[in-house]
Amino acid sequence: MVVPGFQFAGVSCGIKESGKRDLALIYSEAPAVAVGAFTTNRVKAAPVLIGEERLRAGQLQAIVVNSGNANASTGQAGLKVARDSCHLVAQALKIPDRLVIPSSTGKIGVLLPWDKVRRGIEDACRLLSLEGFWDALEGIMTTDAFPKASQRKLAIDGKEVVVAAMAKGAGMIAPNMATMLCYVMTDAYISRAALEQILRNGLADSFNVITVDGDTSTNDTVMLMANGRAGNREVRAGGLGFTPLNNAVVEVLKEVARLVVKDGEGATKIVDIFVRGAKDDMEAQQVARAVAYSPLVKTAFFGGDPNWGRIVCAVGYAGAEVKPEKVDILIDDVPIGKNGISTGAQSEAQAAQVMRQPEFSVTIDLHLGRGRAHVITSDLSLAYVRFNSAYST
Amino acid sequence: MVVPGFQFAGVSCGIKESGKRDLALIYSEAPAVAVGAFTTNRVKAAPVLIGEERLRAGQLQAIVVNSGNANASTGQAGLKVARDSCHLVAQALKIPDRLVIPSSTGKIGVLLPWDKVRRGIEDACRLLSLEGFWDALEGIMTTDAFPKASQRKLAIDGKEVVVAAMAKGAGMIAPNMATMLCYVMTDAYISRAALEQILRNGLADSFNVITVDGDTSTNDTVMLMANGRAGNREVRAGGLGFTPLNNAVVEVLKEVARLVVKDGEGATKIVDIFVRGAKDDMEAQQVARAVAYSPLVKTAFFGGDPNWGRIVCAVGYAGAEVKPEKVDILIDDVPIGKNGISTGAQSEAQAAQVMRQPEFSVTIDLHLGRGRAHVITSDLSLAYVRFNSAYST
Repeated sequence: MVVPGFQFAGVSCGIKESGKRDLALIYSEAPAVAVGAFTTNRVKAAPVLIGEERLRAGQLQAIVVNSGNANASTGQAGLKVARDSCHLVAQALKIPDRLVIPSSTGKIGVLLPWDKVRRGIEDACRLLSLEGFWDALEGIMTTDAFPKASQRKLAIDGKEVVVAAMAKGAGMIAPNMATMLCYVMTDAYISRAALEQILRNGLADSFNVITVDGDTSTNDTVMLMANGRAGNREVRAGGLGFTPLNNAVVEVLKEVARLVVKDGEGATKIVDIFVRGAKDDMEAQQVARAVAYSPLVKTAFFGGDPNWGRIVCAVGYAGAEVKPEKVDILIDDVPIGKNGISTGAQSEAQAAQVMRQPEFSVTIDLHLGRGRAHVITSDLSLAYVRFNSAYST
Repeated sequence: MVVPGFQFAGVSCGIKESGKRDLALIYSEAPAVAVGAFTTNRVKAAPVLIGEERLRAGQLQAIVVNSGNANASTGQAGLKVARDSCHLVAQALKIPDRLVIPSSTGKIGVLLPWDKVRRGIEDACRLLSLEGFWDALEGIMTTDAFPKASQRKLAIDGKEVVVAAMAKGAGMIAPNMATMLCYVMTDAYISRAALEQILRNGLADSFNVITVDGDTSTNDTVMLMANGRAGNREVRAGGLGFTPLNNAVVEVLKEVARLVVKDGEGATKIVDIFVRGAKDDMEAQQVARAVAYSPLVKTAFFGGDPNWGRIVCAVGYAGAEVKPEKVDILIDDVPIGKNGISTGAQSEAQAAQVMRQPEFSVTIDLHLGRGRAHVITSDLSLAYVRFNSAYST
């Protein structure tokens, strides 16, 4: 994947004992308009604290990312390493420090080894190239089983525009579990306000569907950069080119977010939980979340068991208004519960068939109001436990 | 275990395919003063609806319990079977219907087979005896790996008084997961108001420590009955005998609640999560709960991994006020994090030693205020997933 005006590199500097790539650099040849979203966790990693501050100016030229170490809960020493990393990048690329943002993912509570990071940054600055996208993507991965990327091409104002996203993340037993990093690059020329609006639209349908409320890791970061290289007239909110660019960004974000769920540690199934008929959207969200998080529901997904009882139990304790005798539950379009009562063995057998698929949906209709919610979750498998009891994140 | 004036029976009537005991009867020879606590789930099983209503009068003489079927989400037909069960018991024992309460635990959404239940009740009424405690306890068990009971003897007003509890429950990946039934019998003579106060005191230190907020199953029930057979002068709130009786009930409730956690499906460890220094008790509860529920923390418990990062991440997303640089975390008395920073490899090795024990504690001090909370949890093991993906509750 090539996005005009963006250069990438990914190197191995020894943070990961495996010798895999563990440092990535994303560089825009010109300062890019940039917007972002960071974790709402009260414990924020050092790079998140620096990133939030620097992104306020709305401009960015480089992102330096390491994997294998989260640089979280590392105190003042952690902040210094993160700032020093940016400074080294800035010197090598002859750009101001304030246009460089750090990102980290990996184990919490361990100081980054500066000697290794320094060597990694020096190598990465040398290796930057327009074709480095996949190397950089490898450099941001941790427990990911496969790389996550998505691309769209479109025309704005007669010019070809590219939108490309790379993401890392896995561990979807609950959306709160893994660090997700996502970087979206486009060569469109666009105002900061319009870009901000597009990011919010995209998140609402992607990462906010897999992370609910404040349940995010110490490091979660999504950044969207536009360097204007395409040469189109400036896209403004609601103006020429806004809708197609918005749609392209929404699509790449949705695609990579879904790949993150698919790569849930040990996940064998992706399940869309739809709630409708709740008193309001917030209560719908509570119900969707209770069902999506319930370990008993998730193990039933793994076992392919259309367990109406476990789902209805989670609906009941979600805290939302529920009239049990009104609740309908469907697996894809097979009703397993109608008016609060199981639909019987035949529907159950049909639903069990549906649940053999790698992806299916659960729809819960409370028949009380107009509240709706959508959450994407995965199953809870033996491999999840095996993996997470052996591995120190 | 014998509690004067209480008779018990436990029989097999074919609700469980295994042929194990699946129907229990508890009978007080005289009407007992009775208080109880029921699930806060919005979806309540038929027996819970009837129990709540009948217990309002504060008197009770018999409890008829079946296991293997929750009689939840069964609509009007489920209510009828539950009422008919009570009626049959009342007829056989020549007591009023209103003094009989039903209880159920097992699979949700399946109607109870009336023919089997009827035969079971008839058998149980015939087999009632002062020595039937353990048979009845077997009759209320479902996925329990072992029976849970506790007993205390004490003197009030010169008379010997017995307090005995039986409980069932397992599946403690999160406290919300399994139905818990608990019946406490005493032959003390006590006012209803005093008995109510004792139950609240007991729950605060037992089942409310393993179930947080509304996260209970459709069937959870705790009942406390006192039949006055000991012949002591009436115990009143704060009066003669109140404190020793209170302490005995609190102790038996704590003991059986801890046994329920110990029997968490696949659990290999019990972990006490203590939070202190939160802004208030509610925020302390939020933090304790986030840590106790986090599947990544629980798999780390299983692996014996003192994973400071996973704990601090859960602390951060709990939603409570947290100043990361003030957070201390201890495993028993070994600090693994101090002022928001890991205490290093040596402490980690010590903590890993502590975590080899079947029981240990995690203490989180936020150093912000006086809020405290205590939650008991278990680890998340391979056996949990194996079990719950194969079994339809």
